[in-house]
Amino acid sequence: MRKTLLFNRSSFEHLLTMQDYIDAVENAHRLHAQNKIISTNLIHADAPEGEYHIKTGGLLGDNAYYGLKANGGFFGNSQKHQLPNILGIIYLSDAQNAYPLAVFASSLISKMRTAAATAVAAKYLLPKEDLHLGVIGYGNQAEAQIEALKCVATIQSITVSGRNQDKIKEFVSRMSAIHAVPVKADNIENTCRRCNVLITTTPATSYFVQQEWVQKGCFIAAVGADSPGKQEIDPQLMKRAKIVGDIKSQIIKVGESQHAIKQNLISESDVYCELGQLITAQLPGRTHADEIFVYDSTGTAIQDVAAAACIYEKLKDNPSVQSIDFFS
Amino acid sequence: MRKTLLFNRSSFEHLLTMQDYIDAVENAHRLHAQNKIISTNLIHADAPEGEYHIKTGGLLGDNAYYGLKANGGFFGNSQKHQLPNILGIIYLSDAQNAYPLAVFASSLISKMRTAAATAVAAKYLLPKEDLHLGVIGYGNQAEAQIEALKCVATIQSITVSGRNQDKIKEFVSRMSAIHAVPVKADNIENTCRRCNVLITTTPATSYFVQQEWVQKGCFIAAVGADSPGKQEIDPQLMKRAKIVGDIKSQIIKVGESQHAIKQNLISESDVYCELGQLITAQLPGRTHADEIFVYDSTGTAIQDVAAAACIYEKLKDNPSVQSIDFFS
Repeated sequence: MRKTLLFNRSSFEHLLTMQDYIDAVENAHRLHAQNKIISTNLIHADAPEGEYHIKTGGLLGDNAYYGLKANGGFFGNSQKHQLPNILGIIYLSDAQNAYPLAVFASSLISKMRTAAATAVAAKYLLPKEDLHLGVIGYGNQAEAQIEALKCVATIQSITVSGRNQDKIKEFVSRMSAIHAVPVKADNIENTCRRCNVLITTTPATSYFVQQEWVQKGCFIAAVGADSPGKQEIDPQLMKRAKIVGDIKSQIIKVGESQHAIKQNLISESDVYCELGQLITAQLPGRTHADEIFVYDSTGTAIQDVAAAACIYEKLKDNPSVQSIDFFS
Repeated sequence: MRKTLLFNRSSFEHLLTMQDYIDAVENAHRLHAQNKIISTNLIHADAPEGEYHIKTGGLLGDNAYYGLKANGGFFGNSQKHQLPNILGIIYLSDAQNAYPLAVFASSLISKMRTAAATAVAAKYLLPKEDLHLGVIGYGNQAEAQIEALKCVATIQSITVSGRNQDKIKEFVSRMSAIHAVPVKADNIENTCRRCNVLITTTPATSYFVQQEWVQKGCFIAAVGADSPGKQEIDPQLMKRAKIVGDIKSQIIKVGESQHAIKQNLISESDVYCELGQLITAQLPGRTHADEIFVYDSTGTAIQDVAAAACIYEKLKDNPSVQSIDFFS
């Protein structure tokens, strides 16, 4: 008898490594570049006290999956309802027959796949020298980004910047304990000038990375900007850099690239390529030491579906997973 | 502790009456007309062997809900996979904080809310004389439509038309047993000429209701056409009739109205009104015995959400319902 599996956070939290997420996300973008996907799409809806984002898409790999993430962003949640500010579900179906395979809590998968996407981009775009990482932001995503980057590169040092000095201090001390590299705090200018890898993970709506602070050869993962109005990077730097996006049609509308395009500093055709084109070697990654690359990360359902499918495949025959036969 | 409830078909099949669905759907369209909704939206995606439809929307009534239906239509399913051809889930969240309230099997709710919507329209648009019902089509939806109509009106006779004479015969005999009215089969022309209420529930892609067959004062529920290309009604009749739609922006694109608009027989502004405008008395329903009304039914997520919320509210404190804490 067929069943739909139900995965709460703890059911898969310790099952997948960051490397598993990296492999899943890389495979998703490989299939994307090979046109072996079901079209990705996006619905946004405003609620009185927050907003919903529904991202959909599918993968036609060895197995065919279609799914969606339905997430709400309600920024009064933690205070008013003792709930996460961003929450929702991921739904996975068998794209051969639409059977509902599984429903997952979305937050952990979202966090891990976003960090994993940066690591995949980094594999193709990092400078070849010693790597000094600057992280602007100190939330869960910043932590995951460091973990993911360390899966694909050796890092010499980490510098952290952000607004709240208490939170920075706590973050630096926690990262020092986890990672066997020097971790310190500094202001954004110094972090940008000092580091040849930058990861921005803030909810900012005006840029704080000035183009003149960024050194030649830098790799920047612009992770924060994923909806209209969000911005972290000087649009002049977007013009100077080679831009790689997760999904081109998405980054020009809701990613970091939206601003440079709106200001006519770049046009859509100036975007260098999509992540999948690097993975499939349709285009080379870094070829010169001086190139500045920005990975414009907006997040896509195919990443969620790939990660969800990975969890599903690992646990589908495990009797301890909760399940329901929706059709009985 | 908060939990997400999981409703398989049998958990709510005998809980709600058709009248409950009618009340829920009427309330959804009342809120729609009062602008107390979260925007409705639609994603379509083609898979290799079928297609997905995701419909989203929310209701801001006494309680605030947002939800979606993710349905697949895979017309080889019953033969190849022993699965329903149309299947999927409905997801309901609390629109105050995005908490995942419940997941439901979609098929029964879809069937019932579609039939209920016709009954709501019928309340405002039926002729005042004795009602003779003609049904073109003999599937589950045809059966539900008859049940729903009988909740809001007394029917004198039922005539059924369709292609497959064996299925018609079986349907006529089953309907005769259920409903205490004369039920017979006839060809489409005779059914149209004889009846002052017509319900079309087929997957046809070219029309079979000729405009000259339809009598003055007729109420037609055009239920089949809900995606590009589907058609049941002569576009000349759409021009002659007053059109009421569930969601105007949807009927002009995917409903019966799409064809008359494409042929420039009517324009968008010729659509008389939306269902909610009748319910809130913003516009009158039937005012003349001779008026022909077509209710153009395409189905909307607010109907699914209203029905799902009704089930959720009835069963949320029932310990026998399966549940999961997705965030643990």
